[in-house]
Amino acid sequence: MEDRSVLARFGLRARELREAAGLSQEGLAHAARLHRTYIGGVERGERNVSLLNIIRIARALDVSPATLLTGICEGDDK
Amino acid sequence: MEDRSVLARFGLRARELREAAGLSQEGLAHAARLHRTYIGGVERGERNVSLLNIIRIARALDVSPATLLTGICEGDDK
Repeated sequence: MEDRSVLARFGLRARELREAAGLSQEGLAHAARLHRTYIGGVERGERNVSLLNIIRIARALDVSPATLLTGICEGDDK
Repeated sequence: MEDRSVLARFGLRARELREAAGLSQEGLAHAARLHRTYIGGVERGERNVSLLNIIRIARALDVSPATLLTGICEGDDK
């Protein structure tokens, strides 16, 4: 497993859902009660996000934590 | 959001999938390359697991990270 690529895919997924929700990084940060620079780091795949922050971000995006993690591993139907 | 209850639900979900896979805590720990006491703490809801460890546990259970997180938040169809 390449850790960096998984974090990068998670970051892309978070960005995709944020943009779909019409939110800026600032808007998401505010809704999730996290810092804007932290959200930026997450989207760049620089952060090994904790479960509680995954849940905060998912709620701010109005999706489930499972939805936020969908597709981040290769061959991710299983 | 009650942090403790979300971590507890994640722990129950991990235990449920581990038992469905016919693995002991030791077996899962070995497969995921994590420590047995760490797995115990996760299942008791004492650990704010990181994304990389969520992925390690999911792979060891042969499920997707999304599957591992399914149902851990109330009203979690969204």
